[in-house]
Amino acid sequence: MTIRIGVIGVGVMGAEHARRLHRVIGGASVCGVTDFAADRAEALAAELGARVFGSAEELIDADDVDAVVIASRDADHSAQVMSCLAHRKPVLCEKPLAPTLAECRAVVDAQTALALPHPLVSVGFMRRFDPGYNELAAVVRSGAVGEPLLVRCSHRNVAGYPGGDSAETITNTAIHEIDITRWLFGSEIVEVSWHAGKSTRADPHRQDPQLLLMRNENGTLTVLDVFVNARYGYDVRCEVIGDTGATSLAATALTRLDQALQSRTAYPEDWLPRFAEAYRLQLQAWIDSLAANQPSPLATAEDGLAATAVAAALIESMNDHGACTSVKQP
Amino acid sequence: MTIRIGVIGVGVMGAEHARRLHRVIGGASVCGVTDFAADRAEALAAELGARVFGSAEELIDADDVDAVVIASRDADHSAQVMSCLAHRKPVLCEKPLAPTLAECRAVVDAQTALALPHPLVSVGFMRRFDPGYNELAAVVRSGAVGEPLLVRCSHRNVAGYPGGDSAETITNTAIHEIDITRWLFGSEIVEVSWHAGKSTRADPHRQDPQLLLMRNENGTLTVLDVFVNARYGYDVRCEVIGDTGATSLAATALTRLDQALQSRTAYPEDWLPRFAEAYRLQLQAWIDSLAANQPSPLATAEDGLAATAVAAALIESMNDHGACTSVKQP
Amino acid sequence: MTIRIGVIGVGVMGAEHARRLHRVIGGASVCGVTDFAADRAEALAAELGARVFGSAEELIDADDVDAVVIASRDADHSAQVMSCLAHRKPVLCEKPLAPTLAECRAVVDAQTALALPHPLVSVGFMRRFDPGYNELAAVVRSGAVGEPLLVRCSHRNVAGYPGGDSAETITNTAIHEIDITRWLFGSEIVEVSWHAGKSTRADPHRQDPQLLLMRNENGTLTVLDVFVNARYGYDVRCEVIGDTGATSLAATALTRLDQALQSRTAYPEDWLPRFAEAYRLQLQAWIDSLAANQPSPLATAEDGLAATAVAAALIESMNDHGACTSVKQP
Amino acid sequence: MTIRIGVIGVGVMGAEHARRLHRVIGGASVCGVTDFAADRAEALAAELGARVFGSAEELIDADDVDAVVIASRDADHSAQVMSCLAHRKPVLCEKPLAPTLAECRAVVDAQTALALPHPLVSVGFMRRFDPGYNELAAVVRSGAVGEPLLVRCSHRNVAGYPGGDSAETITNTAIHEIDITRWLFGSEIVEVSWHAGKSTRADPHRQDPQLLLMRNENGTLTVLDVFVNARYGYDVRCEVIGDTGATSLAATALTRLDQALQSRTAYPEDWLPRFAEAYRLQLQAWIDSLAANQPSPLATAEDGLAATAVAAALIESMNDHGACTSVKQP
Repeated sequence: MTIRIGVIGVGVMGAEHARRLHRVIGGASVCGVTDFAADRAEALAAELGARVFGSAEELIDADDVDAVVIASRDADHSAQVMSCLAHRKPVLCEKPLAPTLAECRAVVDAQTALALPHPLVSVGFMRRFDPGYNELAAVVRSGAVGEPLLVRCSHRNVAGYPGGDSAETITNTAIHEIDITRWLFGSEIVEVSWHAGKSTRADPHRQDPQLLLMRNENGTLTVLDVFVNARYGYDVRCEVIGDTGATSLAATALTRLDQALQSRTAYPEDWLPRFAEAYRLQLQAWIDSLAANQPSPLATAEDGLAATAVAAALIESMNDHGACTSVKQP
Repeated sequence: MTIRIGVIGVGVMGAEHARRLHRVIGGASVCGVTDFAADRAEALAAELGARVFGSAEELIDADDVDAVVIASRDADHSAQVMSCLAHRKPVLCEKPLAPTLAECRAVVDAQTALALPHPLVSVGFMRRFDPGYNELAAVVRSGAVGEPLLVRCSHRNVAGYPGGDSAETITNTAIHEIDITRWLFGSEIVEVSWHAGKSTRADPHRQDPQLLLMRNENGTLTVLDVFVNARYGYDVRCEVIGDTGATSLAATALTRLDQALQSRTAYPEDWLPRFAEAYRLQLQAWIDSLAANQPSPLATAEDGLAATAVAAALIESMNDHGACTSVKQP
Repeated sequence: MTIRIGVIGVGVMGAEHARRLHRVIGGASVCGVTDFAADRAEALAAELGARVFGSAEELIDADDVDAVVIASRDADHSAQVMSCLAHRKPVLCEKPLAPTLAECRAVVDAQTALALPHPLVSVGFMRRFDPGYNELAAVVRSGAVGEPLLVRCSHRNVAGYPGGDSAETITNTAIHEIDITRWLFGSEIVEVSWHAGKSTRADPHRQDPQLLLMRNENGTLTVLDVFVNARYGYDVRCEVIGDTGATSLAATALTRLDQALQSRTAYPEDWLPRFAEAYRLQLQAWIDSLAANQPSPLATAEDGLAATAVAAALIESMNDHGACTSVKQP
Repeated sequence: MTIRIGVIGVGVMGAEHARRLHRVIGGASVCGVTDFAADRAEALAAELGARVFGSAEELIDADDVDAVVIASRDADHSAQVMSCLAHRKPVLCEKPLAPTLAECRAVVDAQTALALPHPLVSVGFMRRFDPGYNELAAVVRSGAVGEPLLVRCSHRNVAGYPGGDSAETITNTAIHEIDITRWLFGSEIVEVSWHAGKSTRADPHRQDPQLLLMRNENGTLTVLDVFVNARYGYDVRCEVIGDTGATSLAATALTRLDQALQSRTAYPEDWLPRFAEAYRLQLQAWIDSLAANQPSPLATAEDGLAATAVAAALIESMNDHGACTSVKQP
């Protein structure tokens, strides 16, 4: 049995998902795509032998679309997810579930009201499927570092999205680390504060880098430096320090080059190569759960809501000169 | 369209292939398995919803088997491949194609006699699909290290196969590096010599480690230490030294653990985790070529023959006190 | 010409200094030692062929003592330094110059009042002589990372000094990083804040780890996690992130051990092996300056005062629930 | 008491030794220098406040020269060492003791004939004092890797000495690894063979790289690739593989630079920075032994002779098409 997928939004991320689903995921095929830019939808449809739909609504409604992937603009996510709920179609929505807390809540409430045996909505926090993060989590759970006390994360991109501001750094970029500590410890983030020093001149519209402090209910303190215009490469780090040891993600370069008095390894330019395996494993796990009629093992709508609630508290702290701010539990 | 695969031999390697094909390869399913140990064939068939065949011959002959994977004992490879040729079935045979030169030659000759548009036989030199080796090859081809002069390889296993001898180290283990330098430089190995010092006491039936020297037609010299009872971990290294620089495979650990005055990374116990991605990419590439009715991009029967010819020369050198020995080009 | 040194306090640190000065520093010898524990003073004196003095005062006053090293308890530092000033003897005082701001100020004022051609007091912030920190500084100054924006430091010890409290973590341990960012950027720290999450149960008398934020006048933000009971090893890290790149201290292990499915490097148990070369270079530089009658290139009394002022602000923030606190410039 | 040293040959190596001895070695000063290039001798003498001698003979003969360092051309070593023996002056001779076996033997015989309580001649195999090699040796001796079976070494320089040929690669460069395995295992090298593939075009007068195989009496096999025109950096590696584990020298870079999609560490241009600490520790150990009237802990004349005997066997193998060649024990 093959699960037939419709993909909404086929920019860089959506096209990646569509090609991966169609070509290297067992048990799935892409039967339709849609995008506000009709030409790129047509090009991808031709490449994959899929149909083009005139709108997200038509795609979601189509009989031969078994499930939906949403990779449209952040602002369109919640309405499209709501439509999937209305049509009882399983949906994998790229993170964030929505940029605002109200939209996230609406999705969660709508899904809850359906009282279905399995939730329909999954959220694309793909790091939960990254082999590195999973090994890190296994080490932490094994007790090898003792009781976790401190988490040090860095999230650095080559360049920020044009038009992004300081809040977008939080809702779109830092949101990955917000989700990861919740997932790692199974413990909500309850208190945050926002800090900054000098900002790069490369992006005058946002404070960059930012330093975010987050305290989970279990007492661990996470310090995250997020720098979306770091220039030097896409670089994601995570270290968990416990009372008897520490564990961290290792470097991911495949080869080394020795030349001109230097030994060099490469950084990826963005997250796609770094998390290619995580994306693949996430999609395969989602398809497998659909084929088996089992609950999705991906992040849930509730996870999406919780992450956005923490992002909102960080933005509040930012607007309040870095004051320590409680997260309003949704 | 789904390619239906029959798998011959479902020990560790064959069962891996079968599960991977059935579950995480796009466009493939496993419809039948066979094994001299009937119970493990039945258990796997039940797991995958596949049939059990009473013999390799029956499996190869079945109408609903589109293509065959052979992961049986080395000694059975060539007869089963010959049967696939007789039935015009595409076949992916685990390395080595056969332990003896005569068998390899018989396969190549039989396939050539068929004069098919595309060869039917592929050989499972999966390292050709490993992302690390591919990045290494791309660096070499880019000219970043200049003209390649020397290759340093290590191939270390935790423990040798019970019953293996010094020749088996060459035909079964070192054969990977034999293939890799041919693939890397597109140049045949023409001369070899075999060397050894003190041997481990863990495996009295073979010289271990061995040191193998191989010269390719392009002049590069490869030095390979192969140590199948290295104990400390599964560890495969490769460095290409050119006249202006050098490039090498990087370490592959996903995480680091700091504990008890040490910083540690883990070695895998065997090749399955180390080359999981290579196996997946190899199978996907094979299935894609079958679906598209294109030539297989995997190693060919001729590659299998060439590698066995080099192994034979190394064994000859071993039996001749390490004398420099020419490879008989097949 | 040999500079004859008297050493006050010959515990672990002082004995290290004395042996190093006497044995492996060109142009120096140790002629006298003193310690409140007479027996260890006598043992070391016998080993080095030096005299034992009954008190710091006698040692400082002795005609054959050209210069003094102070490695006594922190609380005794300032009085002994004052005595050196009174006797016009050059003195190298271990960090901190004194635990309180008032004592540090008294030393600075007393020295200023002497109006000498060269200051007499040097402070043992030995990291300024560490080859790693110096290479880091050279990279930063070269502009290779652009304008510095963020500094990430970790300072982890195996176990805290018995009896130490949360303030001692700052005045005795974190003080190294306080000094380093001032030295690295030639810019004073103007604002700090103190943060903490869950504390280890290994040391109930202090919050451990602590997370310290410090902003220099040039705008760089430093985030330092200091964990004196980290258990896993002595581990000091520093990364400077600029607007075009980042640079960091590399790992310092000399060898790797592959064994039992792990690849391991060792952490030192404490700072002595990690900074052995820094201590040697600091002492040699001090002796060279004395021999050449040149100003000492070591940290000055003013540096000692400035570091203690920052430590005081951090303690104030700690006592004020992590409030952002200005450093009172001395 | 200060040991007064005369230095013969003040090119790069000799000037390094002279400055180090005079400035940063406890208990030593340089009182005289000589060089066939009078101007560089004069410049260095002025810098250090030392005398210039008109010849090696005059320097060795001078009453105020307590001990001699020889860093002249390899061809002059043995005559100058003989002169030191004649004058009963302790001498540290740079490696090699002499390029020919006959000269080395003459030195050993002459020293033996003197029947002194302590030998006068030390040879500058400084790697024996390198902290990395010493930690490696300690690990091997601890039994942590079990019984040593195989040693893999690489010795790579940026560019060869002008005028050097294939034999010089062995007598001047590979001689370090020849000494190291003897030192590491306390076991003589008994059999060698020489191998080569394609040679760099950068140095038409020698085969480069070379691959050297050496078997010690204890059965360990060493494989050394030596590449004096490797261009990419000065890079020395050593790994000892035993029957239960392996240990190797770790990378020595002090810092990392992340920039332009790459993470980089630097290679030194030559051996001086890489082995600065080894040179310092070697000189200090030599001076300490002289001051204490104890036997020198440095490599002996016999070590110099043994290394040259192995080099001679390697050259013999090279001239005999890589034949396996026994070392004539001197």
